[in-house]
Amino acid sequence: MKRSKINSLLNSKEVNYSVCVKGWVRSFRNNQFIALNDGSCLATLQVVVGLDLLDEATLKQITNGAAISVEGMLVASQGKGQLVEVNAQKIEILGTCDSEAYPLQLKNKPSLEYLREHAHLRFRTNVFGAIFRVRHSLAFAIHKFFNEKGFVYLNTPIITASDAEGAGEMFRVTTLPFEQTPKTDTGEINFEEDFFGRSTNLTVSGQLEAELGAMALGEVYTFGPTFRAENSNTTRHLAEFWMIEPEVAFNTLTDNMDLAEDCIQYLINYVLEHNMDDINFLAQRLEEEEKQKPTQERSEFGLIEKLRIVVDNKFERITYTEAIEILRGSKPNKKKKLSREGARGPFSKKLNHPDTRGGFLNI
Amino acid sequence: MKRSKINSLLNSKEVNYSVCVKGWVRSFRNNQFIALNDGSCLATLQVVVGLDLLDEATLKQITNGAAISVEGMLVASQGKGQLVEVNAQKIEILGTCDSEAYPLQLKNKPSLEYLREHAHLRFRTNVFGAIFRVRHSLAFAIHKFFNEKGFVYLNTPIITASDAEGAGEMFRVTTLPFEQTPKTDTGEINFEEDFFGRSTNLTVSGQLEAELGAMALGEVYTFGPTFRAENSNTTRHLAEFWMIEPEVAFNTLTDNMDLAEDCIQYLINYVLEHNMDDINFLAQRLEEEEKQKPTQERSEFGLIEKLRIVVDNKFERITYTEAIEILRGSKPNKKKKLSREGARGPFSKKLNHPDTRGGFLNI
Repeated sequence: MKRSKINSLLNSKEVNYSVCVKGWVRSFRNNQFIALNDGSCLATLQVVVGLDLLDEATLKQITNGAAISVEGMLVASQGKGQLVEVNAQKIEILGTCDSEAYPLQLKNKPSLEYLREHAHLRFRTNVFGAIFRVRHSLAFAIHKFFNEKGFVYLNTPIITASDAEGAGEMFRVTTLPFEQTPKTDTGEINFEEDFFGRSTNLTVSGQLEAELGAMALGEVYTFGPTFRAENSNTTRHLAEFWMIEPEVAFNTLTDNMDLAEDCIQYLINYVLEHNMDDINFLAQRLEEEEKQKPTQERSEFGLIEKLRIVVDNKFERITYTEAIEILRGSKPNKKKKLSREGARGPFSKKLNHPDTRGGFLNI
Repeated sequence: MKRSKINSLLNSKEVNYSVCVKGWVRSFRNNQFIALNDGSCLATLQVVVGLDLLDEATLKQITNGAAISVEGMLVASQGKGQLVEVNAQKIEILGTCDSEAYPLQLKNKPSLEYLREHAHLRFRTNVFGAIFRVRHSLAFAIHKFFNEKGFVYLNTPIITASDAEGAGEMFRVTTLPFEQTPKTDTGEINFEEDFFGRSTNLTVSGQLEAELGAMALGEVYTFGPTFRAENSNTTRHLAEFWMIEPEVAFNTLTDNMDLAEDCIQYLINYVLEHNMDDINFLAQRLEEEEKQKPTQERSEFGLIEKLRIVVDNKFERITYTEAIEILRGSKPNKKKKLSREGARGPFSKKLNHPDTRGGFLNI
């Protein structure tokens, strides 16, 4: 039987038909109720296991994290908390999961710090599932927005010999060896022997090439990875991040401001329309965190309110002079002390693997 | 007046209204007819310059490559070759272009080799304009296809300490200096002093991380840059290229084959629907090139026929054993000699800049 995705079953208008679902067990109550998630949405599907369906050995393999296949009847739910559920007729264990060793235990809600150390499993949590689905929607909406406006998507070079605007410290890209590095007659490193015959770096910006595109195609944008060999614990840069750079021929400053405002409102509206379950969940989580703070430090608005403020209002436009005046009149932020471990951002040098860094999370 | 794009004017159902267009001069005949292109489409818009509209000095600045702004009336064209044209009421020179020095001369159709050496201007040619518009459509259609199927887009790390499947030679990413490279007590390079505290490379595949995503989100795909420190003159790899890697939990081999077939047919159908002007132009160019070849070496089918064959037929599915049999029974290809300059692909080490390489062109 063809596999159905859980989000489509949960939104099904009909019931009482046979379905096949596959996913990972989130919980198994009373040897009877499996909460099954397949990543298609935040919610789990309740699978009801009849008393005599499975032998003892199989029942024991239905643990948190196990992958299973379920065939059964989609029916209106008898219980509270869900409209539909599946009465299992056949359950197959596709992958077992050692319930003692599995790092995602239901009893202790894992902290974000803990999940960073178990990055390979964090996709399986509600928080990261929601983040990655929202992130996907945002990435798709970025392409949709620019495509509808007639922009041409450019993939500008990642390995480059240019320094764009001197925008930051760069990573060297090389195939030269550190031992017995080839030298010129005058004793300098001989980059003519390097892969591209010169010294190359990871790009800090695709702007230079995008501008050339705009001077012929009219409207172009980039959306790709960008790099800075700088500490990641600032609000400015990560070592690796994905950046959008639109370049438009003939635009005025007002046109550029309109474009930026349109784009941000379009993106937020898109996720409010397509990802409300995930956004609601994240809003609730943030609210719980806010409640831990002293009253005077709590945010005035919830996540959804903040998003609605951005889409429901025209953006204020002020001159640089006005901005400086406002900054001069503002109360300075309390300086936050950075711990020594934080000096390279949230990922310390020793403990962390480069593969769990920025690029995977930020947008 | 708000600028209109040329593709929208050429498709306008109405005439006799005021418009503003901005673009680059492709030709200027008889001090009267400007062919204007703004990159929004392959076609140029004819701008008719009245006899007394401009003084001699301004007329001289309307050269091939100059950027101009035109205000005037969109009217039904009197001449052949276009349905509408613009009767200019005001022309402003936004950027002049030295007609002697400009590398894109109308008289000599530039070769692809020549354009490679003038990469900053190749966007302004019909061939590269068409290629980049088609490439944009393909990239957008890739995201649209996977989005419609419920896949989650992942940006897997570009800088990595893993070697995926040992898929190829890697570029080192480092901030260590070549001079006085830090050493350990035993005299090895001390990568603990490198940016990430270990040796890192540019990724050869996002598969490892994508698989982790699929084991929780169900269906994911990557579409991002990938690297090989290998000669680019093979059909296998470029030094830098964008790769799509779908990863799906619970798929059978047949499901995977269905996905690949659906995807390729979807993409080709998308460009046949959205980019027919550009495809027709490229088909015609390819046909001209084919005609230069000896009869027996010419392709049996034109570009559009080839594309239609792919979308109109089910893909043949054969076993590896059958594939080997077919290969054994086939005539071997004539070996092509590779010139010494070609050893690093079309971009030779000395003459070319890394920024004009692969990533910018291939999809």
